[in-house]
Amino acid sequence: MRKIGIIGFGRIGRIHFKNVEKFNDTEVIAVADPFADQMTEVFDKYGIDNYSTDFNQIINNPEIDTVFICSPTDTHAKIAIAAAKAGKDIFCEKPIDLDTERVNEVLAEVKRAGVSFQVGFNRRFDPNFVKAKMAALNGDIGDVHIIKITSRDPEAPPLSYVKSSGGIFVDMTIHDFDMARFLAGSEPVEIYAVGDALINKEIMQYDDIDTAIITIKFENGAMAVIDNSRQAAYGYDQRIEVFGSKGMVKCENNTATQTTLFVKDGVIKDKPLYFFLERYQESFEEELVQFFKAIESGQEVPVVGKDGLVAMLMGIAAKKSLKENRPVLISEINE
Amino acid sequence: MRKIGIIGFGRIGRIHFKNVEKFNDTEVIAVADPFADQMTEVFDKYGIDNYSTDFNQIINNPEIDTVFICSPTDTHAKIAIAAAKAGKDIFCEKPIDLDTERVNEVLAEVKRAGVSFQVGFNRRFDPNFVKAKMAALNGDIGDVHIIKITSRDPEAPPLSYVKSSGGIFVDMTIHDFDMARFLAGSEPVEIYAVGDALINKEIMQYDDIDTAIITIKFENGAMAVIDNSRQAAYGYDQRIEVFGSKGMVKCENNTATQTTLFVKDGVIKDKPLYFFLERYQESFEEELVQFFKAIESGQEVPVVGKDGLVAMLMGIAAKKSLKENRPVLISEINE
Amino acid sequence: MRKIGIIGFGRIGRIHFKNVEKFNDTEVIAVADPFADQMTEVFDKYGIDNYSTDFNQIINNPEIDTVFICSPTDTHAKIAIAAAKAGKDIFCEKPIDLDTERVNEVLAEVKRAGVSFQVGFNRRFDPNFVKAKMAALNGDIGDVHIIKITSRDPEAPPLSYVKSSGGIFVDMTIHDFDMARFLAGSEPVEIYAVGDALINKEIMQYDDIDTAIITIKFENGAMAVIDNSRQAAYGYDQRIEVFGSKGMVKCENNTATQTTLFVKDGVIKDKPLYFFLERYQESFEEELVQFFKAIESGQEVPVVGKDGLVAMLMGIAAKKSLKENRPVLISEINE
Amino acid sequence: MRKIGIIGFGRIGRIHFKNVEKFNDTEVIAVADPFADQMTEVFDKYGIDNYSTDFNQIINNPEIDTVFICSPTDTHAKIAIAAAKAGKDIFCEKPIDLDTERVNEVLAEVKRAGVSFQVGFNRRFDPNFVKAKMAALNGDIGDVHIIKITSRDPEAPPLSYVKSSGGIFVDMTIHDFDMARFLAGSEPVEIYAVGDALINKEIMQYDDIDTAIITIKFENGAMAVIDNSRQAAYGYDQRIEVFGSKGMVKCENNTATQTTLFVKDGVIKDKPLYFFLERYQESFEEELVQFFKAIESGQEVPVVGKDGLVAMLMGIAAKKSLKENRPVLISEINE
Repeated sequence: MRKIGIIGFGRIGRIHFKNVEKFNDTEVIAVADPFADQMTEVFDKYGIDNYSTDFNQIINNPEIDTVFICSPTDTHAKIAIAAAKAGKDIFCEKPIDLDTERVNEVLAEVKRAGVSFQVGFNRRFDPNFVKAKMAALNGDIGDVHIIKITSRDPEAPPLSYVKSSGGIFVDMTIHDFDMARFLAGSEPVEIYAVGDALINKEIMQYDDIDTAIITIKFENGAMAVIDNSRQAAYGYDQRIEVFGSKGMVKCENNTATQTTLFVKDGVIKDKPLYFFLERYQESFEEELVQFFKAIESGQEVPVVGKDGLVAMLMGIAAKKSLKENRPVLISEINE
Repeated sequence: MRKIGIIGFGRIGRIHFKNVEKFNDTEVIAVADPFADQMTEVFDKYGIDNYSTDFNQIINNPEIDTVFICSPTDTHAKIAIAAAKAGKDIFCEKPIDLDTERVNEVLAEVKRAGVSFQVGFNRRFDPNFVKAKMAALNGDIGDVHIIKITSRDPEAPPLSYVKSSGGIFVDMTIHDFDMARFLAGSEPVEIYAVGDALINKEIMQYDDIDTAIITIKFENGAMAVIDNSRQAAYGYDQRIEVFGSKGMVKCENNTATQTTLFVKDGVIKDKPLYFFLERYQESFEEELVQFFKAIESGQEVPVVGKDGLVAMLMGIAAKKSLKENRPVLISEINE
Repeated sequence: MRKIGIIGFGRIGRIHFKNVEKFNDTEVIAVADPFADQMTEVFDKYGIDNYSTDFNQIINNPEIDTVFICSPTDTHAKIAIAAAKAGKDIFCEKPIDLDTERVNEVLAEVKRAGVSFQVGFNRRFDPNFVKAKMAALNGDIGDVHIIKITSRDPEAPPLSYVKSSGGIFVDMTIHDFDMARFLAGSEPVEIYAVGDALINKEIMQYDDIDTAIITIKFENGAMAVIDNSRQAAYGYDQRIEVFGSKGMVKCENNTATQTTLFVKDGVIKDKPLYFFLERYQESFEEELVQFFKAIESGQEVPVVGKDGLVAMLMGIAAKKSLKENRPVLISEINE
Repeated sequence: MRKIGIIGFGRIGRIHFKNVEKFNDTEVIAVADPFADQMTEVFDKYGIDNYSTDFNQIINNPEIDTVFICSPTDTHAKIAIAAAKAGKDIFCEKPIDLDTERVNEVLAEVKRAGVSFQVGFNRRFDPNFVKAKMAALNGDIGDVHIIKITSRDPEAPPLSYVKSSGGIFVDMTIHDFDMARFLAGSEPVEIYAVGDALINKEIMQYDDIDTAIITIKFENGAMAVIDNSRQAAYGYDQRIEVFGSKGMVKCENNTATQTTLFVKDGVIKDKPLYFFLERYQESFEEELVQFFKAIESGQEVPVVGKDGLVAMLMGIAAKKSLKENRPVLISEINE
């Protein structure tokens, strides 16, 4: 029985809690959250009685073998290093850190400690995208030429979030960067980004944007384009397509039903599932299934530290590209 | 160059006129319509200068080799017999006649005269349905088990039409009867119909209905079900599916575009094409292509007199079934 | 905390077990199955330690307040009556019994005891069909005229099952009968069935068929048609459509992904989800959510005994119709 | 009756011929093609008896009032200037010329002569795209933020064609540049292109590529991305989507049928229509309908000379961007 400690019990911490509880051979031993004192009702609801405001209660608990880091981004590195030093296996939400040097420190410590470390790029486990990846891997579509990722949120985050999020390329596009790299099966070489504040000009005061198109060149010749918007009126728009020498694989949005209304005014179908909790429910579960399976069998976890690092480098390159209005090499960042 | 005379220049006569004019090796020589005197504007618009109120002007014109019968149903038999006697090849709109004995007289005369005689079951030439038929013929779906036909009009005809149309089973379902038989590749054995006036009770004064479900058993074991409505709020609904031992083939409605609107209120697609002129445009043209091709090559036309006869028998059986509330054998009618 | 006992731990018993365990305020106290002695591995896997071969261990357990009847059909009535007498609330799988008199006995005992009794017509809770029902209820499609239900299994059951199942109309179509009645919002009046053994003639030795089309007339004028096959090569085909005076609502099959492959040979999409466990996963869970909610709030459960009874009457009427080749009134059966 | 002369009777000249012949109030008087002497069979087939190898036979024919320029690109300017000087209205295939100065000369002459001049950007008249444009124009999707155009050919052209085509951005993407500008409803400011020879390296000897992604910024803030491939294994892929502040409009490919095959191996739909002749059949006809309508009513034609010019500037900018690996301003080209 794998014994889990969860650090950070916001939206994402709760998702992982529920999934861990679903499995037969894992259980959550304790939860830590700086606001734990004010969260008794939440803990009651989830049936949690071992909680603390101090994450060290998790790190130092010898019963716990695996730590989930679901706290704010700027605490990830510190906690990850402590957890690695304590010999815990780690599941860390993305991004590892906004600073790539700090990311490297974490990865170095993880390596030294010899613990498992998986980054929370859950979308790699979405059944739609897995099927697309498989079509690329098994040769159905030949060599990959063009990758297209549409990723639009149903509503913009509060400006307070944007203030410290690191900007659209690292708070939102980072998932798409990882997806593009995952689908390309190759390392990114160069990035070019255009973007603007088309939804709400106020976001510019935090040096951020809400609409972007990013082009990526990969080592193997594949090209990718990502388009982002922080606000799609019709909901969470998450589509990809991979075009290759022998064909294309295309993923449309999931919907709550396959039910269509035919009336005088038109033929009306469901909008996409509202947001990531609904859309990526299965992938949040599957990433844990594979995380635990890898640990148990002593194999490499499916999303490693480097995956977190490279996605971050891509985000920084995109930011630089937008600022300087020129294509930016990943090698310029990674020095 | 094939020389055509068209008898009856209403909606359907005009469709055939346009298609005949499109081909390089056919031309319309003359048109007859009892109301020709009042239709000079129409003829001007179509560029027709040889017209008459008397269909014998077509029958007796030695220059004409092919006659299109597009007049009201109760004149079809008389004209067809005259045209056959005059040695003309014939394209006859459906139904041949409401009385099966009269239909048999027409077919007998056609046989005696040795002319070609095609019935206007244009839907057999619709690209969707042709593809479905091909899937059945080439074994893709194995033996045919279940045929489903949905056939609903966008609006009910005027009661004045219903008065003399022969009722829903022969004015509307007749196309579906032919389609079921075409897809089954077998002869009908027994028919059961339920139906009611659910849209407009007034139709009952003409002993007719506006909503029906008809079940058909075929000699080869296939079963078919047709559902009809004289009024679908969202437009002309024309779908079929054929289910067999190895799979299914399914035809959805055609639409004007493949363009979808995604907004706050939902995801909105096109309604089906409005009515038969739009929906079956290609099949109206293709039935003539194959009619002329068959005549030129001396082969049998693709829809023969018997096809018109059997569809009529099915209509009469359905009517009897509805009245007597029991399954009716085709053999009961065909005596 | 609601305390559950499950009687019968086959495929369906296990589904309910898992769902009951998922909820926070319900727990399974004990399980009974005649083969419990040989099922220790299964019980281990599910973490069940209180089990017995004797269903009376459940009935007589004062700690248990709710009984799930998931045993073979011919034991339902006996157990249900015992459970009602013991004052337990009951969730009973369909059909209640193959004999309608016996069903009436069960319902009478349930009434006398004043316990809750829900029948396992889970499909009423499928999100697709719920949306269709809502469209009918809220007036989006106007008065209901035509209901169409396609229900085909991915593979025929073993002949050993067919032998005692009561035949296709009560082992398979019964779900569709309930769905038709649910969507019509009205009581059935008359039924006509055609059917044949088109997949495997051997089924005829048990007086059964594998392919059927059933027509139903309802009191409110709505008509329904169900088509069944015991074997669809492409998988579990579960579709409905409801057509009314103002429009139509149509449910297509669920698929594992929304991912499509475009290659030289065509555009290839997912087949329907394999079978009922996958297809109706959500509805199996939701029927319990609403069952427990109704009990807790003292309201009527969403699927009552009469629903089980009428579906059974429809099945018997269909069987009689097929045998006598004529439409059969429900009132003929219900005497 | 409008009297037409067609110069150049290759694939595109023949399309226009057929469409002109379809209309009641237009007719083709004469055709010119440098290879006319070797094309007698073709002319026979089309029923053309007035033909010549010399385009001046068209220009100098006083009976002709409208000239269609369907000859190779490098002859467009010369013929257009001659036709304008002769006072003919002009329908000119794209691109007007590979050299923008030469384009400006043509447009100046057209202006001086006061004749009508329409450029053959037929895709603007495609029913799918018209519906998308309407959704943008009428406010359904709010302000335009992101335009996405997928444009892939079913097979690469022969290298002999590539040799003098001016490269992918002017022989293929030019249509997409015009479409992006049409949908944006604004002028392009800056272009960035990535591209490579991923299908056939030999194309590089002509300084060309076969795969590209192009990003465009427009004056009104809209951004567009075009992805091109010279060879899509599954056929001609022509899709657009326009995303705005209130929603999105999305156009999928047209297919020959709406018929789907469901078999053991999957659910198989039609591939896109094969190539531009099939896909844009309706738009080729509609561009002429509107051309003639505009001329007759004395209004501006729907696609003017400037449209041809700007699309060309965009092509040249893209070429420069690819070569210099940087975003290029349209103003850099247009000097």
